[in-house]
Amino acid sequence: MTRVFNFSPGPATLPEAVLRQAAEEMLDWHGSGMSVMEMSHRGKEFMSIHAEAESLLCELMGIPAGYKVLFLQGGAIGQNAIVPMNLIGRTGRADYVVTGDWSKKSAKEAAHFGEVRIAASSEEGGRYTRVPAQAEWQLDPKAAYVHYCANETIGGVEFFWTPQTGDVPLVADMSSNILSRPVDVARHGLIYAGAQKNMGPSGLTVVIVREDLIGHAMPITPSVFDYKIQAAADSMYNTPPTYAIYIAGLVFKHVKSLGGLAAMEAHNRAKAAVLYDFLDKSGFYSNPIQREARSLMNVPFWLKDAALDAAFLQGAQARGLVGLKGHRSVGGMRASLYNAMSIEGVQALVAYMRDFEAQHG
Amino acid sequence: MTRVFNFSPGPATLPEAVLRQAAEEMLDWHGSGMSVMEMSHRGKEFMSIHAEAESLLCELMGIPAGYKVLFLQGGAIGQNAIVPMNLIGRTGRADYVVTGDWSKKSAKEAAHFGEVRIAASSEEGGRYTRVPAQAEWQLDPKAAYVHYCANETIGGVEFFWTPQTGDVPLVADMSSNILSRPVDVARHGLIYAGAQKNMGPSGLTVVIVREDLIGHAMPITPSVFDYKIQAAADSMYNTPPTYAIYIAGLVFKHVKSLGGLAAMEAHNRAKAAVLYDFLDKSGFYSNPIQREARSLMNVPFWLKDAALDAAFLQGAQARGLVGLKGHRSVGGMRASLYNAMSIEGVQALVAYMRDFEAQHG
Repeated sequence: MTRVFNFSPGPATLPEAVLRQAAEEMLDWHGSGMSVMEMSHRGKEFMSIHAEAESLLCELMGIPAGYKVLFLQGGAIGQNAIVPMNLIGRTGRADYVVTGDWSKKSAKEAAHFGEVRIAASSEEGGRYTRVPAQAEWQLDPKAAYVHYCANETIGGVEFFWTPQTGDVPLVADMSSNILSRPVDVARHGLIYAGAQKNMGPSGLTVVIVREDLIGHAMPITPSVFDYKIQAAADSMYNTPPTYAIYIAGLVFKHVKSLGGLAAMEAHNRAKAAVLYDFLDKSGFYSNPIQREARSLMNVPFWLKDAALDAAFLQGAQARGLVGLKGHRSVGGMRASLYNAMSIEGVQALVAYMRDFEAQHG
Repeated sequence: MTRVFNFSPGPATLPEAVLRQAAEEMLDWHGSGMSVMEMSHRGKEFMSIHAEAESLLCELMGIPAGYKVLFLQGGAIGQNAIVPMNLIGRTGRADYVVTGDWSKKSAKEAAHFGEVRIAASSEEGGRYTRVPAQAEWQLDPKAAYVHYCANETIGGVEFFWTPQTGDVPLVADMSSNILSRPVDVARHGLIYAGAQKNMGPSGLTVVIVREDLIGHAMPITPSVFDYKIQAAADSMYNTPPTYAIYIAGLVFKHVKSLGGLAAMEAHNRAKAAVLYDFLDKSGFYSNPIQREARSLMNVPFWLKDAALDAAFLQGAQARGLVGLKGHRSVGGMRASLYNAMSIEGVQALVAYMRDFEAQHG
């Protein structure tokens, strides 16, 4: 068995230790005689797995009292509708900040449920290379919430500051950078994230919501996506994605064992620096994102000559470097450097990039 | 490692061969150097897993041309809202047949989206012991669809005939009996099922929908749950629950290797007969369901004296018979006998029941 370095944007590489434990426990979890996949979600075994995952997430992220953690389904794209269904009814309108394709998509979906304003956007000719400074934001004090995407996986643009929105609740899509570094949960009204980047398998969505924002769902909100109903049922109004929650719990424990989110930040900054430093010195590869908004998680880059893309990807694959093809909407390459990517993986990528340039530059 | 006999209603027991294969492939699927959990859903590896699972399901169920198979999230309880969001707009009203708690819940949720009529119900004093005969159904020819639940897991009531609804599309919740025996898909407009009984882990929902019923979603339908959007995207408008699809694919292959749905039916009838025959001869245990509506999948039964319930469950656990506690709304016991439950499991249960009766009867 040879494991590759997997730079996929999500689903993405997971800690090998987690996968080994999952394999070992597959037929018999802790002497229960069952796989976690086979357990009733209401049995004491799974209830303990669920409670531990939730408690570890609260500990890692420092989630204060007054917030509920929900384990739902439907992904972040589902939340694009579910967030406004639950929150926009308070005033009928919401502000969105657009820094890439994902936040643009979020704003578009929300418009089915109320009045949506773009409070700020960094779109220029369909591309995004920066985060609009707070001074550029035109906020509506009557908005039910302000939505932003903390990290855009396609553009490679990330927020490194928490927006100021006064009394208007701040909502963040943190799908692609949750658990990558500490975050000030208390300054958010709601944080949501698909699991398939830094937490575990696809099919699990984490929602962290301030309690006063619960209970305002529109009548057409499906019960399984009504935060009030799910909060009251501890995320068990319907059968939760049990195996995905179990894997996420193992990942949380692993992150804790490595030192928590401060350690993750140091690890992620070190990895990203290896790649960005190399890109900045290169005339063959480029990354156009403003330095202060460069994502630690997703690094898009372009070869000088797109005609070499196929050869680049083929050579990378031969060295066990996979998942590097850029998103179809922007082309080029993209290296996703989530928590579980090792610094050795990034070093191997840079070594390959150097060799490829020497051969084709 | 000792595996138990797991009678849980769902998530539920899975074929041991499937779990063994999943464990073996956990760190490296087919030489890819990745776990299935880590694969990009748009990469060729996962695309092949997804396509094979879909194709096996079509083969097993005999899904004819003119139907789309969707792999979604949110479970059957999610579909309680998603079905009307997609279908009820055609005429604004729908008929529901109530044979248990699940179909009652489905009807209640649908009422948020249009006019819902109960076309027939077998509820008597909050309990259900039969399926209303077709002659009792009062169907609305202008209904957008007629909904029924093919098997009620709580009451243990199952349909063994396909309702006649003329030109009105028939919609079935088959969460708990899909793949348990052959079904005439062509007589249905839509079939949906959560995976966590006969297909795999929770977090995956299968929707089989006739193509002419696609494209009528209400504007407030979340894009991830708009059948038209998901059908056009081959269920990849958002990231699908990849690992759950992979496990379901392994289960489909396993069912095929055992002889398909005709073989499953023989296996399931034989198992259920062992338990029902014993119940019918017993004065200590009882099951009140009409013979022709007795579920092959979920067998509720009650001890003569409910004060013995705790001792019964404790003794069962000691013999490796788990998940037997009845649903909290009806009490008693329930043995779920899905495809992956062996006849040895049912025989072990009956042997225990006999011993328990001898001791306490």
